[in-house]
Amino acid sequence: MEKEKVLNYAHSHEKEFLADLNSFLEIPSISTQSENTQDIQKAAEWLANRLKRIPMEHVQILPTAGHPVVYADYLHAPEKAPIVLIYGHYDVQPADPLELWQTGPFKPTVRDDSLFARGASDMKGQIAACLYAIESLLSQGSLPVNVKFILEGEEEIGSPNLAPFIESHKELLSSTFALNPDTGMIASDIPTIVYGLRGLAYFELRVFGPAHDLHSGVFGGIIHNPATSLCEIIAGMHDKDNRVNLPGFYDKVRPISAEEKMELSRLPLNDEYYLKQTGSPMIWNEKGYTSTESAGARPTMDVHGLLSGFTGEGSKTVIPAQAMAKISFRLVPDQDPEEVHHQLIQYLKKNAPPSIRWEVIPMGHGPACIADRKYPAVMALYKAMQSVWGKDPVYKREGGSVPIVSDMQELLHIDSVLTGFGLPDDNIHAPNEKLDLPTWYHGIDTLIHFFFNL
Amino acid sequence: MEKEKVLNYAHSHEKEFLADLNSFLEIPSISTQSENTQDIQKAAEWLANRLKRIPMEHVQILPTAGHPVVYADYLHAPEKAPIVLIYGHYDVQPADPLELWQTGPFKPTVRDDSLFARGASDMKGQIAACLYAIESLLSQGSLPVNVKFILEGEEEIGSPNLAPFIESHKELLSSTFALNPDTGMIASDIPTIVYGLRGLAYFELRVFGPAHDLHSGVFGGIIHNPATSLCEIIAGMHDKDNRVNLPGFYDKVRPISAEEKMELSRLPLNDEYYLKQTGSPMIWNEKGYTSTESAGARPTMDVHGLLSGFTGEGSKTVIPAQAMAKISFRLVPDQDPEEVHHQLIQYLKKNAPPSIRWEVIPMGHGPACIADRKYPAVMALYKAMQSVWGKDPVYKREGGSVPIVSDMQELLHIDSVLTGFGLPDDNIHAPNEKLDLPTWYHGIDTLIHFFFNL
Repeated sequence: MEKEKVLNYAHSHEKEFLADLNSFLEIPSISTQSENTQDIQKAAEWLANRLKRIPMEHVQILPTAGHPVVYADYLHAPEKAPIVLIYGHYDVQPADPLELWQTGPFKPTVRDDSLFARGASDMKGQIAACLYAIESLLSQGSLPVNVKFILEGEEEIGSPNLAPFIESHKELLSSTFALNPDTGMIASDIPTIVYGLRGLAYFELRVFGPAHDLHSGVFGGIIHNPATSLCEIIAGMHDKDNRVNLPGFYDKVRPISAEEKMELSRLPLNDEYYLKQTGSPMIWNEKGYTSTESAGARPTMDVHGLLSGFTGEGSKTVIPAQAMAKISFRLVPDQDPEEVHHQLIQYLKKNAPPSIRWEVIPMGHGPACIADRKYPAVMALYKAMQSVWGKDPVYKREGGSVPIVSDMQELLHIDSVLTGFGLPDDNIHAPNEKLDLPTWYHGIDTLIHFFFNL
Repeated sequence: MEKEKVLNYAHSHEKEFLADLNSFLEIPSISTQSENTQDIQKAAEWLANRLKRIPMEHVQILPTAGHPVVYADYLHAPEKAPIVLIYGHYDVQPADPLELWQTGPFKPTVRDDSLFARGASDMKGQIAACLYAIESLLSQGSLPVNVKFILEGEEEIGSPNLAPFIESHKELLSSTFALNPDTGMIASDIPTIVYGLRGLAYFELRVFGPAHDLHSGVFGGIIHNPATSLCEIIAGMHDKDNRVNLPGFYDKVRPISAEEKMELSRLPLNDEYYLKQTGSPMIWNEKGYTSTESAGARPTMDVHGLLSGFTGEGSKTVIPAQAMAKISFRLVPDQDPEEVHHQLIQYLKKNAPPSIRWEVIPMGHGPACIADRKYPAVMALYKAMQSVWGKDPVYKREGGSVPIVSDMQELLHIDSVLTGFGLPDDNIHAPNEKLDLPTWYHGIDTLIHFFFNL
């Protein structure tokens, strides 16, 4: 059977795949630091060369206003076979603090079952898994589906040039659906399919009081301190049940269905798990929901930053002229980020006192998205995971946002299948990032099954 | 008449006094910043040299555990003449934010009638007024009173070493009363005597949540954000009548007597005045009190600084591991700062949720104090102001704190006469600090009259 031959090829080439991935990981393609611009270019060229050797076709390094996009395709599948658009990013986070790494972030090193290097899990390893699955398939003659790659170099800086690139390359990128391997698994023995992502509406909230900083001895007690007022405004944004207190905030929130609640309850993500992950004294979530539901399927409000007045060492008795908070709302279907912006304004109009002035600066937003778990491509992935792990995968809603998913929905009118073979303890964005190699080899097998299942 | 000659000397040396003050203001003697330690030393030496030239006697730079104290005396007055202990501080507040200064904080600049520089009003200008008054007196032969100077370099960091210094130099400092020119006037045409000062209890409040910063997408909604929690804790510290919400906070507050209310109501310090001084949108004070009462004779709580998480440009979706606020309480007779510390702890024990950890770091405190308005030295100042301004001065309770006043009461058993020739719009502790020169020259004259009246 052809599938067996493909899997055999993959299994007999594990060493070569690992060596090849290492040469990719050695390139410090850090997108946030301008001194690594040449390394970004080098990583794009590494990908282009690798894609050509598979061999993919129409391999191109396409310019953007920032770092380039690497494109390639292979469009020789039988009629009616879908076109899969594989998304990835070849840039990585900075490696500092360097002194906390046990081995160099760009000197990939295997210890036990783990490969340590910056980008091993997020997400050069995930891109490589796709490359080696397709290499294995083509080694036996052909691909059962059509494939296109879109690999960007700016994800870690917020993909500022990706939506414009997609906008201007709609025909080139037109596909049946997208495969986005930038999420992960819950544990090495729990194959995971992410079917929902939260949206985001991010704001800077500024409160202004006196015309300039004042001495709190002379003027304390007669004017509203803007730092106090900011605290009061933020404190009012949650009610006693930890619900977000903006007018109409929950009006469009899609309830979690009984079936979905059941499925989410099967996830091994209980309070204990979250307490261990966070180191927090206790769970503090919306009344009436489990922690798993709260972390993925319910909207939230968080403060990301506070700044006002004197924050140095020692004491200074100033009434600050202004105070600032960075806040955001995580959104779920079917909340509209624009509406949440409006609700925030309404909240402030109603609750901010006349003793201060306020200002809201929108700082980026995107809607939540949720996939149909019965969608054929999702089912194909489900079956692929069943075959490899010998057990049913779990469905998970992810609390974070992947803006590219909504961009693809909006610009290319395609859904994304979200997967990935990273683990929660992979230390992404932190020192000693690693990739669990047994899980990664399972991932290559999964992708091979997936392409056959489509 | 001798007094006329002294005044003439002062009037004919205004230019020299100003130039001399400028050379004092050029020294950035910022006590809160360790990089300015040498400048502190330089300011102490400037004072010692200046005192010698007057000429004062026994000029000494005396060490403390922190910045030195400058001492000098002149004890040749007729028998029964009082000994006046003149207090001052030669350290200044930091100058940041530098970009808001129209001219350099340590490049004294005259614009119209104002001298702009850090420390011009608080309080190098006030010390200088005393120096030049005494120089004018000694230029005509002798001083009608005995004088001692105690000039410290740590007032802006809470005078941590002043009480121990006084304690160990009681004999050297023994005096009839203290003259403390660290308060100010209500307006350039309203000579003012301060008879009450508020106390202070200053704290850093820290709130801790997760063990490290978290991604708000992954963990938002299941743990208590410490920045949100800090805001909630601070918001709870005022009730709807703008009263401070600590348990027992008002128990020992001495009520304002009917006579005092009457006198305070004569002060030209109405809402309009405070709105103009502060540039605030409206008055926001304790229910049931006038703004004058609230600013001087009622206790308050203020936030001086807030810091948490990401405060740079742009957006970062972090749940910060901790949040910090600098807060203080202004106290009135007969509140006890130690008791207020205890009340704050009680408030937090009762109101801080179990979902976070908190910590309170005391950062200096002192009780309020209130003086007898019929005290002879107060009357001498009253008459001096009458002579210079040609009108009766007003009595005022000051909202700020001068811990040294209670230290002198406790350790040297002397009262303080509080004056000073700064104005409310001098921007002390803020950018563009200035000194009103016509008022300052009036101040030198007032001090000359004062010494004659004693």
